[in-house]
Amino acid sequence: VANSNLTVLFNQRPNGLPDINCFRVTEGSIPEVREGELLLRTLYLSIDPVLLNRLKGVPSYGAFQPNELISWVGLGQVIASRHPDYGVGDIVESMMGWQQFTSVTALNVFRKIDPTLSPVSHALGILGVSGMTGYFGLLETGYPQAGETVVVSAAAGAVGSTAGQLARLKGAHVVGITSSPEKKRYLLDELGFDAAVSYKSDRFAAELAEACPNGIALYFDNVGGAVTDVVMDNMKDFGRIALCGQVATYHESDGGWRGNLLPIVMHSLRLQGFNTSKYADRYPEAIKELSNWIADGKIKVRETVAQGLESAPKAFVGIFNSQNVGKQLVKVSDPA
Amino acid sequence: VANSNLTVLFNQRPNGLPDINCFRVTEGSIPEVREGELLLRTLYLSIDPVLLNRLKGVPSYGAFQPNELISWVGLGQVIASRHPDYGVGDIVESMMGWQQFTSVTALNVFRKIDPTLSPVSHALGILGVSGMTGYFGLLETGYPQAGETVVVSAAAGAVGSTAGQLARLKGAHVVGITSSPEKKRYLLDELGFDAAVSYKSDRFAAELAEACPNGIALYFDNVGGAVTDVVMDNMKDFGRIALCGQVATYHESDGGWRGNLLPIVMHSLRLQGFNTSKYADRYPEAIKELSNWIADGKIKVRETVAQGLESAPKAFVGIFNSQNVGKQLVKVSDPA
Repeated sequence: VANSNLTVLFNQRPNGLPDINCFRVTEGSIPEVREGELLLRTLYLSIDPVLLNRLKGVPSYGAFQPNELISWVGLGQVIASRHPDYGVGDIVESMMGWQQFTSVTALNVFRKIDPTLSPVSHALGILGVSGMTGYFGLLETGYPQAGETVVVSAAAGAVGSTAGQLARLKGAHVVGITSSPEKKRYLLDELGFDAAVSYKSDRFAAELAEACPNGIALYFDNVGGAVTDVVMDNMKDFGRIALCGQVATYHESDGGWRGNLLPIVMHSLRLQGFNTSKYADRYPEAIKELSNWIADGKIKVRETVAQGLESAPKAFVGIFNSQNVGKQLVKVSDPA
Repeated sequence: VANSNLTVLFNQRPNGLPDINCFRVTEGSIPEVREGELLLRTLYLSIDPVLLNRLKGVPSYGAFQPNELISWVGLGQVIASRHPDYGVGDIVESMMGWQQFTSVTALNVFRKIDPTLSPVSHALGILGVSGMTGYFGLLETGYPQAGETVVVSAAAGAVGSTAGQLARLKGAHVVGITSSPEKKRYLLDELGFDAAVSYKSDRFAAELAEACPNGIALYFDNVGGAVTDVVMDNMKDFGRIALCGQVATYHESDGGWRGNLLPIVMHSLRLQGFNTSKYADRYPEAIKELSNWIADGKIKVRETVAQGLESAPKAFVGIFNSQNVGKQLVKVSDPA
């Protein structure tokens, strides 16, 4: 084990969108391992928008205080164990500090990861919470039907690309909303979407309407805000919305998550929220099914991987500027 | 026919909540009846919160302009007809001016009313759009189940009292949210609710939680705003919301209807909006069923009836201050 430990601390709360001054990168020491704890060498950090709530100080998410270690989900390899269920070499998904070496109690470990999984980073993406969110949100909340029009926002992201491809596998006419011509091409050429539009286009509203000539039966919403307002104008009566996230609103001073309910009444829409963790007992079946589709080439996976622990602040800021394609990760080290 | 015609015109837009200066009462003349039109003697005006959008000038609702005749739903009796489908003496539900005598084109008439209906005012309340809203909203959107907890906001109003009593008939544990001790007694003693709480109580949140020890399975929401925020804290996972109205928000400068979507995700809730007019082809069955329940004493009906056309502005302002029990109407004249 090294004798220094690169560490990211919370520095200050963001004013609206996050910036790198929310974080401070420093050198720490290797943590001690107490009874019931594991010492992990960090492999990958999962970079997720919802972490913004802890930076903003929203109490229900666990507000970070200045100089507190940033902690979130990641993959680590056990290099010392004082818990009988874990041995040196095990790879685990766990809550962990943004550090090269981090100690965690076994209670904070979600699961062991099959060491033959390749790439192991998929355990944080398509075969982790992001994939589970796309899978259960789309299939158990949205119920896409063959032939109907399904629109996915943030479609090139980790969750959206999963949901959109699953809708395509179910035979739906899938339209992705994304942020650039390059990502449109990715959705069309690599993921097999039927249409893709950029919300940054001057003609966004017209282009979305043109891509959905029969109206939208199902909307998988990751973003909220102005993009969702445009989608709502194109919903069919009695259409459905699978409510996943509202990332365009998280930086708002009132905490975000305020949505316009009027179209829901006018078009008799059903909006179904879902909390992925409620499906935890069914993750194994979903992981198996997704793994098979990936092996068969029916689902394509990309990840955006920033290199080195010190890149974590910039990677986090970037996901609010649509910089990622697929899951955003930070690679800290390779498994031994 | 008289030779004067009391008339209510639009005067000025409200600043937030409506006030009587939005309206101006004047004397008009008896309208001419052109080909295809009917001259009606007004019987009752329907007083509904949604009219506020026309006063505020929201384009999609049809913005009133200064000195324009206020027009909304009411009951009238035909005193002159230049349309073959309607004869003198017919009672009709129609869009109409806030006038003692009003001319309408047959296109604006919704339906003829059975002249034996007693009281005929029920055609605007329990056997009209308010009742249809409670009926289809609760039964076709909420699907209340025996034994589960159903909460209704604005429970003593026209829609809420219908929805709550229907939930009771389905065997649910029904909790009403209302505005005063008197209305709580009305809900408990006359309508048979299982519990009632006032949102004006200092202990509102605690009282609601006490009234719903098993959590809320179904929330029939008429109000939105702060009351709904408290209800959301008590929703069961996978609970349902029948979204009817957001009357607490209509006066907001951004048009209202902004709801907090975060609890919908956290508790995996299903929010179903409904537009009552989509069920128009099924109104006859609902009217028949409600009529039978009223005749059997299983559903109780109250109306709040202001007397005289000149009382319409005050009656409208009053519904934003919880002054009504059951449907708010203005009685202008008796049927001949």
